Amino acid sequence: MKIPPVKGTRDFYPQEMAIHNWIVDGWKRASLRNGFEEYDGPIFEYLQMYQIKSGDEIVEQLFSFKDRGDRDLAIRPEITPTLARMVNQRINTLPKPIKWFSVPRLCRAERPQKGRLREFFQWNIDIIGEDSVLADAEVIFTTVDYLREVGLTPNDIKVKISSRKFLSAVLKKIGISEEKLNSLYGLLDKKTKLPAEAFSEALIQQVGERISEQVISFMGSQSVTSVENIVKPDAGGELDIAIKELEDCASRLGQMGISDYCVFDPGIVRGLAYYTGIVFEVHDIQGDLRAICGGGRFDNLLHDFGGPKITATGMGMGDCVLEILLSEKGLLNQKISARSLDYFVLPVADNLLDDTIKLVAQLRTLGFKTIFSYKSGSLSKQLKTASERNAKYCIIIGDEFKAGDIVLKDMSTGNQKTVPLNEFLANPGKF
Amino acid sequence: MKIPPVKGTRDFYPQEMAIHNWIVDGWKRASLRNGFEEYDGPIFEYLQMYQIKSGDEIVEQLFSFKDRGDRDLAIRPEITPTLARMVNQRINTLPKPIKWFSVPRLCRAERPQKGRLREFFQWNIDIIGEDSVLADAEVIFTTVDYLREVGLTPNDIKVKISSRKFLSAVLKKIGISEEKLNSLYGLLDKKTKLPAEAFSEALIQQVGERISEQVISFMGSQSVTSVENIVKPDAGGELDIAIKELEDCASRLGQMGISDYCVFDPGIVRGLAYYTGIVFEVHDIQGDLRAICGGGRFDNLLHDFGGPKITATGMGMGDCVLEILLSEKGLLNQKISARSLDYFVLPVADNLLDDTIKLVAQLRTLGFKTIFSYKSGSLSKQLKTASERNAKYCIIIGDEFKAGDIVLKDMSTGNQKTVPLNEFLANPGKF
Repeated sequence: MKIPPVKGTRDFYPQEMAIHNWIVDGWKRASLRNGFEEYDGPIFEYLQMYQIKSGDEIVEQLFSFKDRGDRDLAIRPEITPTLARMVNQRINTLPKPIKWFSVPRLCRAERPQKGRLREFFQWNIDIIGEDSVLADAEVIFTTVDYLREVGLTPNDIKVKISSRKFLSAVLKKIGISEEKLNSLYGLLDKKTKLPAEAFSEALIQQVGERISEQVISFMGSQSVTSVENIVKPDAGGELDIAIKELEDCASRLGQMGISDYCVFDPGIVRGLAYYTGIVFEVHDIQGDLRAICGGGRFDNLLHDFGGPKITATGMGMGDCVLEILLSEKGLLNQKISARSLDYFVLPVADNLLDDTIKLVAQLRTLGFKTIFSYKSGSLSKQLKTASERNAKYCIIIGDEFKAGDIVLKDMSTGNQKTVPLNEFLANPGKF
Repeated sequence: MKIPPVKGTRDFYPQEMAIHNWIVDGWKRASLRNGFEEYDGPIFEYLQMYQIKSGDEIVEQLFSFKDRGDRDLAIRPEITPTLARMVNQRINTLPKPIKWFSVPRLCRAERPQKGRLREFFQWNIDIIGEDSVLADAEVIFTTVDYLREVGLTPNDIKVKISSRKFLSAVLKKIGISEEKLNSLYGLLDKKTKLPAEAFSEALIQQVGERISEQVISFMGSQSVTSVENIVKPDAGGELDIAIKELEDCASRLGQMGISDYCVFDPGIVRGLAYYTGIVFEVHDIQGDLRAICGGGRFDNLLHDFGGPKITATGMGMGDCVLEILLSEKGLLNQKISARSLDYFVLPVADNLLDDTIKLVAQLRTLGFKTIFSYKSGSLSKQLKTASERNAKYCIIIGDEFKAGDIVLKDMSTGNQKTVPLNEFLANPGKF
């Protein structure tokens, strides 16, 4: 009975697993050096968890099921609700600010397409309990710190930064009422994904022709201050504060040395419902791919999950788009080190297999990556296998073994020497 | 709105995550040094995958659901069916023997209890395409190699070894028909979990009183050869071959240096339906816990999943029972290294925050784990925080900074010295 894999999932054979591990290890290293600590939660939660504040798109894409007690559960489509639940559970004992990261496996019932699968991994970093824009800048820096490490330059990617607070202040000044904002965000977030005309028509339908022109003009602004051509901030007012925050953020990013990666872009809205402050996305410059990652400040989420009013800012980066980009830029294969092996032990005759097995076990116990061939074959055939397996050294168990000696062959130079087994085992690294 | 976690799942806060990572990293290291390569598959597969050969217990405990195309899917309760599917897909191109490992997240709809959760992680190692008992011995060695490394001795645990082939040959010789074997295995597997009387009664019901006495006597045998007091092997017959395999395995384990961990135990049956040869479980000597791990040879599984007849042998070890045992033996906390930090950068005044941020970003870019305090406070308060966070060094940004100097404080000795920033950044490790 042959059963296929489910569409939109991936099989990680050793070669793909090596790439996957290389990506995840990089995420973890970048998180740790930026002071984030790792956490994780369950792969499923109560269905309700995802019906509170996740965007409509996510709710539609849940894999939900019932347990034997008829409770409604769902596989996690994102980890932020779990983060909110976990932090709330220990809100009084966790020292603030909380800087946590995670690399959850997530599932969404999407139609599989380029850069979107039904199962994927997502790097998440979050800072909870720090109001200042410095925290937003630190999240952006950590993101760039990783992307720069894997070889992406300001010629490959840009961090596009805006602010929900800024967007809301501008839209209200243009004449859009508070209640209409949320549904308008949904449309604005789709601007780059829709043809210009379709976007314009949908916008006119929502806000009328006059206002729609101002919105489109605003979304094309090149700098924070150029918005003043459209609306004037009142000193100390909502818009004034939002502008200062964006400028403060830009200045922090400058201090951190990553200005060349960052641009202001009022077209960045973010689909999720819970953002409240600075928001950002990283895009490839060619613009062929979906966003590589996105994030921002969400000041109400912990409260929405039954906790106190405490501010948070974070970022999520999936592995699918990233891997496509790295592959297109030629940054992937060259970085994955070939499978390594310390010793390949080979007997020249069947009656030496027992001694071979004994030596292999000893070397493994000492911590060396060691294998042997189950099928004894000619010396040259076994050496070929050892070479294919990328072994650093071969240990030949031959006639010398009766006298207690092994032959050690350096596979990079081809040099070989006879060594007493006892001396070798006492300090294998010496030889 | 406060939503609790689902019962039987775990939240991994940073402290629990550190323990989890320590366990998983150990599994990975032991796998790699024993020549296994890592793979992984999707968290869900077609429901049917688990209805083919998994034991009844597993089928009952599936979390199943439908996708939007009305296909029946299930969260994986084990990874072996996925392994069979993946190997079959590339059976002609993968070099044999295939030695693979994985650390899948698995879910089973169990009643949560000590050592059994509804979500857990399981170390899996498998050797596919090697007939000889040497492969079974290598799987057992790799298992012990890990358990020994984490500090468990032959006084803590025992590997109990038997063989399905042996069991089947003995039972048939005692007079049990081939068809009855599978249902009998299910009962024999429960022997240690049931009260002696309940087991005996159930056994009598299945096979009658006379045979049941022989079965119980057989299951108490202390050695492979002592079974000859109950049934006599015919030279070259099924039982004779099975005995020779068990003896061969014991001899290999001796060569590998782990005889002191291993015992023969005909009471080991394994619950899963697909085992065909040598089977084993690791138990704590006190016998308070469920099996720490189990495994064995399954010669038909790949064929059952639509592939060729190719032999396989493997092992699965969950994290729950292992963690309880390690904790009870005091082998856990002392091994988890406290969270480490290279530098804690602290400004003595608010107006030095900009320079602090700049330096922090530079150190992180160089790969050092570096943090700073968002809240500027007194020097002594910040030093206390740095000490709590286990920082190796503090870098104090104070009055000297105007002259381009920093103060570097070694947190282990308390010594501090003034260093030019440029020299420090050119080679931080030197100071």
